Amino acid sequence: MDQRISLITLSVTDMDRASAFYDALGWARVPSPDGVIAYDLLGQTLGLYPREALARDMGLPVSALGHGAMTLGYNCREKVEVDALYTRALAAGADGLAPPHDIFWGGYSSYIRDPEGHIWELAWNPFSPLRADGAFRWSGYGD
Amino acid sequence: MDQRISLITLSVTDMDRASAFYDALGWARVPSPDGVIAYDLLGQTLGLYPREALARDMGLPVSALGHGAMTLGYNCREKVEVDALYTRALAAGADGLAPPHDIFWGGYSSYIRDPEGHIWELAWNPFSPLRADGAFRWSGYGD
Repeated sequence: MDQRISLITLSVTDMDRASAFYDALGWARVPSPDGVIAYDLLGQTLGLYPREALARDMGLPVSALGHGAMTLGYNCREKVEVDALYTRALAAGADGLAPPHDIFWGGYSSYIRDPEGHIWELAWNPFSPLRADGAFRWSGYGD
Repeated sequence: MDQRISLITLSVTDMDRASAFYDALGWARVPSPDGVIAYDLLGQTLGLYPREALARDMGLPVSALGHGAMTLGYNCREKVEVDALYTRALAAGADGLAPPHDIFWGGYSSYIRDPEGHIWELAWNPFSPLRADGAFRWSGYGD
């Protein structure tokens, strides 16, 4: 597992209010499908995402995500790496929340919870390949 | 405010257990003072930090940090920028948890909570200047 994080996802109840805050700090959004508001950072993307959708993706009840919850995402370079990393994380002591599975838009995703309760998505996104140095861009497609 | 994050801090109750997990995934720690376990990532550092210490730094009761809590850190290039950014964040709708103040080891720090409850440290660290591109390294001192 490389030492990098692809996505930081903030659980949000009011997307307009949440994005107005980061806009007001001077951050510029990148174009994104409905339902996600994304800001590309140096080596990863910060995403604002509705709490209900995040809980659904994780396979958890909404009540499991407290006020201010956030999650980390690690994207693999190849689909098969997701299975290997999920297995390795469980062997290292993580709880499996959602085993690796295909997503309707073409991605492949899983969720684990580390021994202290921090939640990670371990995923592969064929539309946003990682840069040579491992950086993830919501926009740019690996350029 | 540049679009970057300097630190991702995971709230931890059992430092040995938490670090054993990330060690087992293959991550290498960087040397660090007692009380923090740090892994340098691409553009920032992931830190494991005891929940009690994190709550104390934020000026919150420990009970305010749920299981799996994590926080984000933004380091400024100059000390005076911390004051300006703290003021800007409050004007944008954040709650002030800890106003900018000097830290015993020489840093300057503040904490705010965004409108959705995500907690940020806004800080200046004279011992770890940012790289030209804004990346933060726990080790390396800006090289």
